[in-house]
Amino acid sequence: MRKAVVLLSGGIDSSTALAIADDMGYEIHALTILYGQRHEREVESAKKVASAFNVEEHRIMKLPEGLFSASALTYDEDVPVDGDLERYGIPSTYVPARNLVFLSIAVSWAEAMDADAVFIGVTSVDYSGYPDCRGEFIEAFREASALATRRGVEGNPVEILTPLIDLSKGDIIRRGIELGLDYSLTWSCYKGGERACGRCDSCRYRLKGFRDAGIDDPLEYEDDADGTVHK
Amino acid sequence: MRKAVVLLSGGIDSSTALAIADDMGYEIHALTILYGQRHEREVESAKKVASAFNVEEHRIMKLPEGLFSASALTYDEDVPVDGDLERYGIPSTYVPARNLVFLSIAVSWAEAMDADAVFIGVTSVDYSGYPDCRGEFIEAFREASALATRRGVEGNPVEILTPLIDLSKGDIIRRGIELGLDYSLTWSCYKGGERACGRCDSCRYRLKGFRDAGIDDPLEYEDDADGTVHK
Repeated sequence: MRKAVVLLSGGIDSSTALAIADDMGYEIHALTILYGQRHEREVESAKKVASAFNVEEHRIMKLPEGLFSASALTYDEDVPVDGDLERYGIPSTYVPARNLVFLSIAVSWAEAMDADAVFIGVTSVDYSGYPDCRGEFIEAFREASALATRRGVEGNPVEILTPLIDLSKGDIIRRGIELGLDYSLTWSCYKGGERACGRCDSCRYRLKGFRDAGIDDPLEYEDDADGTVHK
Repeated sequence: MRKAVVLLSGGIDSSTALAIADDMGYEIHALTILYGQRHEREVESAKKVASAFNVEEHRIMKLPEGLFSASALTYDEDVPVDGDLERYGIPSTYVPARNLVFLSIAVSWAEAMDADAVFIGVTSVDYSGYPDCRGEFIEAFREASALATRRGVEGNPVEILTPLIDLSKGDIIRRGIELGLDYSLTWSCYKGGERACGRCDSCRYRLKGFRDAGIDDPLEYEDDADGTVHK
């Protein structure tokens, strides 16, 4: 059985990527990387998703504090979580070179256990504004990682698979539901409260995705004092 | 003053790269990454070298246990340290995608602190056999890291500098001595004993370098029971 490392944050995209890897018949070694992000609640979601798909192994790896900095998502409490979905440029939630680091770690693990592939749930549609989610980054990373590894030298590099790259958020959700993924297990909100805030970029992308898919998001969202539900 | 992250293991190459970064006028942020390698003695050497050059900062980052595996240099006690310098192919001391992970972490840090460059002491002469020390890997990594980062998007990527890439071990040592690097502070032996073993690949490359440079290695080496000094 072919093995794959699946980068799993517990959000919609990575959970759907895992469902697709499962559907493709891979033995799944899920990898959740903690780096001081505020939404540790995502980790609980990652565990539930991994468990729902009976993965072979779910490795939760805590990176040293301060490995990532200068982002609203990490230990830097001073950088605010940006709520402006429409803003041009790169959001404050950008973590410098995060996917470069995550993919490098995943490839190292894949090579060590002789896995054939690494899955990452990046999408270039409904694009987050993070440079390291773009297809052109992934393409360059494939080249670099093939040259960095024994398997690449032997002509059989670890594949970097991005099954969501051309899917909209709505398409992703429809695909996950076809594959039996229960999205009530996933978590997207950057704020990590009891209920999702409905206002941060990540909630807004998620809600737009469910609207586009014509499906009701099974998560609960915060109400405002005036009774507005942000959903 | 322009800032640079210098990957510093405490061996000959990275210490010389640091001396060159210093000579180029960079404010140096040295980064030593621990990953369970057997030769923790190198870390003490890294501290001494950083201190000798009055670096701005020396960060010692311990990666989680098991991030790297399947190598003679890490937690896998089962993989022997290979002593055959002349062997074709990739030595058992190869750590899967190590420089890919190290450079990714260094680039993330560089971007977070707005440093202009990352220095890595790889050389393609007297080549170790590690795929991730080759110039072609570095070239592909430059492309991937530019695409992964905000600075790359803005047209001003963090530079990946490899000042040793075309130097032989002998040239490296001669250059370091010109720049005032005291090689008695450095450490190369994979075995990490009181004195260097003189027999592992790393010792043999080092000793060959000193011979080629026509300079006596200031380190002490083990003697055999019969009185042979491995130097």
